[in-house]
Amino acid sequence: MRSTMQRVPLSIHNFLTRAGTLYRGVELVSRLPDKSVKRTTYGQFHDRALALAAALVGAGLKRGDRVATLCWNHHWHLEAYFGIPAAGGVMHTLNLRLSGDEIAWIANHARDRFLIVDDILLPLYEQFRDKVPFEKVIVVPFAGAPVAGPMLDYEAFIAGGAAGFVPLAHDEDDPIAMCYTSGTTGRPKGVVYSHRSTVLHSLVASLPDHWGFSGRDSVLPVTPMFHANCWGVPYAAVMMGIKLIFPGPHLHAEDLLDLFHAEQPTYSLGVPTIWLSMIPLLEANDGRWKLHPDLRTLVGGAAMPEAAIRKFAEFGIAVAQGWGMTETSPMASMAYIKPELQHLDASARVARYACAGVPTPVMDIRIMGDAGVAPWDGRTTGELQVRGPYITGGYHEVPTDPEKFTDDGFLRTGDVASIDEHGYIRIADRTKDLVKSGGEWISSVDLENALMAHPAIAEAAVIAVPHPRWTERPLACVVFRQGRSATPAELNAHLAPGLAKWQLPDAYVVLPAIPRTSTGKFWKMKLREMYPSWEAAGVRLA
Amino acid sequence: MRSTMQRVPLSIHNFLTRAGTLYRGVELVSRLPDKSVKRTTYGQFHDRALALAAALVGAGLKRGDRVATLCWNHHWHLEAYFGIPAAGGVMHTLNLRLSGDEIAWIANHARDRFLIVDDILLPLYEQFRDKVPFEKVIVVPFAGAPVAGPMLDYEAFIAGGAAGFVPLAHDEDDPIAMCYTSGTTGRPKGVVYSHRSTVLHSLVASLPDHWGFSGRDSVLPVTPMFHANCWGVPYAAVMMGIKLIFPGPHLHAEDLLDLFHAEQPTYSLGVPTIWLSMIPLLEANDGRWKLHPDLRTLVGGAAMPEAAIRKFAEFGIAVAQGWGMTETSPMASMAYIKPELQHLDASARVARYACAGVPTPVMDIRIMGDAGVAPWDGRTTGELQVRGPYITGGYHEVPTDPEKFTDDGFLRTGDVASIDEHGYIRIADRTKDLVKSGGEWISSVDLENALMAHPAIAEAAVIAVPHPRWTERPLACVVFRQGRSATPAELNAHLAPGLAKWQLPDAYVVLPAIPRTSTGKFWKMKLREMYPSWEAAGVRLA
Repeated sequence: MRSTMQRVPLSIHNFLTRAGTLYRGVELVSRLPDKSVKRTTYGQFHDRALALAAALVGAGLKRGDRVATLCWNHHWHLEAYFGIPAAGGVMHTLNLRLSGDEIAWIANHARDRFLIVDDILLPLYEQFRDKVPFEKVIVVPFAGAPVAGPMLDYEAFIAGGAAGFVPLAHDEDDPIAMCYTSGTTGRPKGVVYSHRSTVLHSLVASLPDHWGFSGRDSVLPVTPMFHANCWGVPYAAVMMGIKLIFPGPHLHAEDLLDLFHAEQPTYSLGVPTIWLSMIPLLEANDGRWKLHPDLRTLVGGAAMPEAAIRKFAEFGIAVAQGWGMTETSPMASMAYIKPELQHLDASARVARYACAGVPTPVMDIRIMGDAGVAPWDGRTTGELQVRGPYITGGYHEVPTDPEKFTDDGFLRTGDVASIDEHGYIRIADRTKDLVKSGGEWISSVDLENALMAHPAIAEAAVIAVPHPRWTERPLACVVFRQGRSATPAELNAHLAPGLAKWQLPDAYVVLPAIPRTSTGKFWKMKLREMYPSWEAAGVRLA
Repeated sequence: MRSTMQRVPLSIHNFLTRAGTLYRGVELVSRLPDKSVKRTTYGQFHDRALALAAALVGAGLKRGDRVATLCWNHHWHLEAYFGIPAAGGVMHTLNLRLSGDEIAWIANHARDRFLIVDDILLPLYEQFRDKVPFEKVIVVPFAGAPVAGPMLDYEAFIAGGAAGFVPLAHDEDDPIAMCYTSGTTGRPKGVVYSHRSTVLHSLVASLPDHWGFSGRDSVLPVTPMFHANCWGVPYAAVMMGIKLIFPGPHLHAEDLLDLFHAEQPTYSLGVPTIWLSMIPLLEANDGRWKLHPDLRTLVGGAAMPEAAIRKFAEFGIAVAQGWGMTETSPMASMAYIKPELQHLDASARVARYACAGVPTPVMDIRIMGDAGVAPWDGRTTGELQVRGPYITGGYHEVPTDPEKFTDDGFLRTGDVASIDEHGYIRIADRTKDLVKSGGEWISSVDLENALMAHPAIAEAAVIAVPHPRWTERPLACVVFRQGRSATPAELNAHLAPGLAKWQLPDAYVVLPAIPRTSTGKFWKMKLREMYPSWEAAGVRLA
């Protein structure tokens, strides 16, 4: 027996059409390099995305061809998100925080044919222009400087308009976008999203218990549009006609708070460091910034300390964490208060919002421990493994690696986690960041969270350092708040109530700042390079 | 180039697994025939659905085989929703409001192998038991009476438990459920839903601007579980772990209000007549019923008059309409206040909630007028046509009918509608209910809505009666409220401000009640049979 349902492919063209019909008047706000604000609409976005598609096809783009973007967050980038797939192409977001050599390697590996680049990023492009044979370089007049040939001016490129252009028909598994993982080990690897995966992710992520995206929202994505495709937010926003507020290149806490104040977003998203950097400013705030009374924020990419979530709550800002990676589109779990936990008090709720959340629909999520699939007991840890229609099953033109995928098709995330009886996932650590001490594992994340709750500490990162007796022992790298400090004994005393004695750091080093990766996360690989031994950390073992 | 995303089928098994892991403690409330309330949990539901699946497989059910249900709304029926597909079978909901002969025809056409039937519906089953060769009849102990052989007791049937039963693997296009359209003309026709269509419908319908289903909700489906599979609500509820409150056979307004009071649902759904029948009771309510302060209701199946929506608002109940049919899973459009209309006052909002709403994501919706696709001008009318992954593309074992589908794959709904510049769909009428007067069309729905806003009128249905000069002219059939009445002249005077003179009814007949179809809608075919001519209506044409 067969279903009678229509065979209609899922398509992000449907979202673009909605923008051009249902939501023409909704505003898009882009902050320009000079900090002025440019206002456009979904109607203009729709027409311009189709004009971009028509121009790309006119320029010889063929189905499946890659068009790279090297751009900040702004309306032109959103046009690329939809215009490139409308032309049958694949948008490849390049990470502007990488070095020229890294970008060149990635663009060549993806065989990008065209490049769309911000005018203010041309100096970065200069660093690798000789290394990548782009056929066309299309320059976004973000600052508005004139474009020197043979590069093309974006506005001139699309000036022909859409002229009746119809987005290309496709299968739902056809690719629309790709993103290379930042790859702390080995070469970066490309994840390729499809119409299907993106539509499904948009629907699941927008549900009331997840992002809760409605037309009443306005969203400010601090997350760069070149990180895991901005966590999928632009697609979901266009689907429901949600006003987007793009911060452009101005990602300092003060600039962001100014934009929050001016545009009153109800939702924002970014890595924890963004929010952590706002806390001192908000604490010193003498009424300068008025935020939307119902502002919610989504935090991902690394764990946000509970203490910071509590601090944000004091300022009236709700914080929830999601878990995901470039490989997972990214949202595979999301923190929210489940029906049976609605009775929890504010403090217990914070603990829930601080975890990696519960699995979303259409996902299979499990913890694979030494003894097989771990029970949901909140204690047993193992590798977090995920399977689902918006999880990658491989990497672009890379042979399948059994270290990355299980025989039954789960992605091996490399995160060590547990799941409690309510289904809340707690990330204990990245596999490679665990401290293996005397046959036991110590979670660097636990130590960092506890340290960052100390009033003197602004940031803390814990790494494993080889130890002759215990294999490895934890070294804590801390950054003190302005004018504050604490002794190692004081810090260990602060940690002691929540941890076993053998889990406490053996030593502390004080740094002016924790080095960060291009995605804003603590760059532990760099710390491990800095402190390969106790001697390097200036510590004499007892 | 290919996407790297996993090929994982969409599956309602994923929802069932969520019920059994994430939501085990969430309550399911079923009202029994004696009006007592039975409380079970999602954990029990999960285990019992798997036990049902194991028992069905044990009884010889093969992939794609149909299992009919003839049941009211209760937890056993929910077990069938998920347990039958878990066994690889197709749940076929039979409509208990049809005659025995009609049910027999439908069950035979679908070739149902097994039947699950409520004990209190055995008298109905007796009417057609000789006409349908069910291999097994499984009786739900809804009232708890002992079961006579060779029929099987449901509880005994599933008593073996799940015993490690694993839901059958499947393609996402595999069927899970079927429902026959009530078929006001011709034979009923079967629509067959798939895993894919049901998962997509659950996701789209649950979005914040649509049903807004979160775990904080509790839902009371008045809509029978045998109507368009309860509008898809049970699937979406299980997906997010939402408490369900099943009213059983007690659908009188007073019984429902008692249940609203006792269980405090935040969401309910049903046809307009259900809500209309509550208004007099709520008006006379002396504090007997306390409803949830945030109660929202979804109305569909027919148009709810604006006056009734306003009246409900007085009682603090938000009403929104959706549009759909058995063929559309059913929600293809949903009324909500779009971002650009957030400034509307309460009265203007009601007008928006009273329309058929705006198209949902993943849907293609258009109005096909005489001159092609109609512009979104709020005036041009034509046939509402829909295409999408949860819209039927045909009927079970019925040759494709060009009257039902366009060459480019749209379902021809038979509804006449317009779309305004904001994308709001307004159903003018069913094609067959339009009054064709002198080359112009008169909307029976418009007349009915206007009449039902008159204080003396409880219900109104308008039909076309053949007319020697104008082809057809409208006849209004009205039901007066208790102790109230009005003359035809008074009613026409009430209508006059909003309508052209030629649109006013030529005559009125007063009825004790408007006849209803098995789905609770006004049964206009019956009215047309009653009044085939003006003579039959007791009217002498001028």
